Amino acid sequence: MPKINPRRLLNDLKHLRTFGATGPGVVRLSLSPVDMDARRWLAGRMNDAGLSATIDGVGTVFGRSRNAGPALLIGSHTDTQPTGGWLDGALGVVYGLEIARALAECEETRHVAVDVASWIDEEGTFSGFLGSRSFVGENVDEAVRGARNREGVLLGDALKQAGLADTPRVHIDTARHKAYLEPHIEQGGRLEAHGKSIGVVTTIVGIRELNLHFTGQRNHAGTTPMSIRRDAGAALVAFIARMNEGFRQLADADTVWTVGRIELDPGSFSVVPGAADLYLQFRDASASRLHAMETALIALIRDFNDEGQASVAMTHSEPPEEPVMMDTALQTHLVDAAEALAPGQWERMPSGASHDAQVIAHHLPACMLFVPSIGGVSHDFIEDTAEAHIVLGCEVAARAAAAIALEISG
Amino acid sequence: MPKINPRRLLNDLKHLRTFGATGPGVVRLSLSPVDMDARRWLAGRMNDAGLSATIDGVGTVFGRSRNAGPALLIGSHTDTQPTGGWLDGALGVVYGLEIARALAECEETRHVAVDVASWIDEEGTFSGFLGSRSFVGENVDEAVRGARNREGVLLGDALKQAGLADTPRVHIDTARHKAYLEPHIEQGGRLEAHGKSIGVVTTIVGIRELNLHFTGQRNHAGTTPMSIRRDAGAALVAFIARMNEGFRQLADADTVWTVGRIELDPGSFSVVPGAADLYLQFRDASASRLHAMETALIALIRDFNDEGQASVAMTHSEPPEEPVMMDTALQTHLVDAAEALAPGQWERMPSGASHDAQVIAHHLPACMLFVPSIGGVSHDFIEDTAEAHIVLGCEVAARAAAAIALEISG
Repeated sequence: MPKINPRRLLNDLKHLRTFGATGPGVVRLSLSPVDMDARRWLAGRMNDAGLSATIDGVGTVFGRSRNAGPALLIGSHTDTQPTGGWLDGALGVVYGLEIARALAECEETRHVAVDVASWIDEEGTFSGFLGSRSFVGENVDEAVRGARNREGVLLGDALKQAGLADTPRVHIDTARHKAYLEPHIEQGGRLEAHGKSIGVVTTIVGIRELNLHFTGQRNHAGTTPMSIRRDAGAALVAFIARMNEGFRQLADADTVWTVGRIELDPGSFSVVPGAADLYLQFRDASASRLHAMETALIALIRDFNDEGQASVAMTHSEPPEEPVMMDTALQTHLVDAAEALAPGQWERMPSGASHDAQVIAHHLPACMLFVPSIGGVSHDFIEDTAEAHIVLGCEVAARAAAAIALEISG
Repeated sequence: MPKINPRRLLNDLKHLRTFGATGPGVVRLSLSPVDMDARRWLAGRMNDAGLSATIDGVGTVFGRSRNAGPALLIGSHTDTQPTGGWLDGALGVVYGLEIARALAECEETRHVAVDVASWIDEEGTFSGFLGSRSFVGENVDEAVRGARNREGVLLGDALKQAGLADTPRVHIDTARHKAYLEPHIEQGGRLEAHGKSIGVVTTIVGIRELNLHFTGQRNHAGTTPMSIRRDAGAALVAFIARMNEGFRQLADADTVWTVGRIELDPGSFSVVPGAADLYLQFRDASASRLHAMETALIALIRDFNDEGQASVAMTHSEPPEEPVMMDTALQTHLVDAAEALAPGQWERMPSGASHDAQVIAHHLPACMLFVPSIGGVSHDFIEDTAEAHIVLGCEVAARAAAAIALEISG
């Protein structure tokens, strides 16, 4: 079986960290000069590994194996959040690089094809999952023309600036690409809490993002008796209590819902709020549970409006995202590898966060492997994973990748 | 008995309305050019009425009777909120002007002294109650040096601009001023709801303004299970429910409390809030009830913090304002006049809003008379009072003023 080189793996991860290093964290926003430097370095390391590497017309680094297909595709992303950690995305890309090298160095697997990708803009500096969406054939021209980063720079201008305006885009080749593996940090505290080292992802959860707008009657906070108020803020608070109760009845241990923002209008001490808004997000691995939660919400809203104190209206802030199942045969390969190298130290789990795998899974059988995040922290400079977990994760991923690649290459 | 002239009263009110008229409302912020125009017009009308009028060093228009004291002082304000109504403040000032004229025209009362004031900046464009505070001898020099309006203009510069920088300030003369009357619109819906025409104010309520800051743990909204979250926003919502329950047990029908603002940090769909803030105001006519509410809040906070999910800390945003009692003998004069002119159509009530009377009541016996606000609306362009109520209110105020002025002049 192929053997990864832990020192080479860690050296590459640590070198990649130097691009945009900020204290213990990394600031490497998509298509920024430092991100492009990192991409050019990565393409060089892919070429050194015997892959044929390009940076495509949206910025994705794609290292194509010189072996004939069918190929296993391993990918993740090397762009970061505005205040990002060093492993979120980077881990999976460098695993892919190391696995490609390890399989090429092994007699039994040197003939198989492993392509490796760093998808551009997973984190949505301009347009989330841009690289994987472009790869699977979604039309991203509108995003290229219209999407802007926080500074107002157009994606199209950033691509021009990066010298990519006239570069072709890499596209999926379903005759070649037969399976997708995305290793990633967990970004939550579940593996750590359970004392496990490896997570095998069953599903990437679906998401609803809703705005609830409450309308009451703005009034003087001194002269308006409680009995005749129609306080939109008080209505919002009362509604959240009912919603929590309703959701608790539908939830399982992995269902999550979050009120991330509340705004009262006009927002001063002396005025009974006449309007109020909340941002609600909920996530679950079950499409039917998401549907049941939305239905429950609609019923709560109807009841609330029938009572007539204040009214509430719901709008979708983002289109619904349905859960995406990981391929069960690929999951079995991950489980077999985990049980061989870390018996009893792995578990199956949903991914509460979004990943490029959810885009690609609609076109290829896809799977994900997680390693633990210390303290469950991510999207923060202090995000980290124990070195032993980084190495073990790559060993498990490499063993599974070898088995998958051998299987698909017949 | 003196007789007011309804046509003259209404004409003056309507003329004053033209300064800053905006649709049905008025925009006449303290010391703005249009406010100064209104002040000069008002001083002229006072002089026409036989008073000796000045605009003092902070902008208060003061019309001093040419009769020897003791004097009854009648006042309110002619500045407005940023989107104000035509009667809030203006009503009481023009009542004072009309009452001074009516008493001067009446054989029985022409010898009594009625001084009339329009206190500057009751609404706090720069510094709330500036005119009445300066009048009673509070040190307002710090406000003059440091207070700014929303555009950032310093009060001192606005006074210079208005030509008042070197003008003396008018001060209370306790040998002369023996009683204070402030007529005002109710700004609430109580008189209208009860079918009454006149309110006799018993107390101006006390106010507490508090900030409650909740601290939890910021986390990823997708990967952090509900069971291990320390969501500062959820803690805030749960706390409000407990607070409502606690306050309901302490409240009477006039107790009011308002959560006017809520902020969750960082305020996005995908992040479990790590911190949360709310603005809480409560008002009551009873000092002991205000104290009991604050004590209850402190106990709730202690219990909440003992539970350890998230922590909450309370700070006073403004110094506590204690309730201010209106003088009972003066209330009796208002009641007698109301019962004579509008039998059964009056009631005693607290003032839920703040007024210059609360500043002056610490130095002189003070009273307030309310007329109904249509729909309970104030601090809004559509604020209004029925013309019959405007006239009746002035008749009652004039009758009471005559009785008070005769009594204090011995």
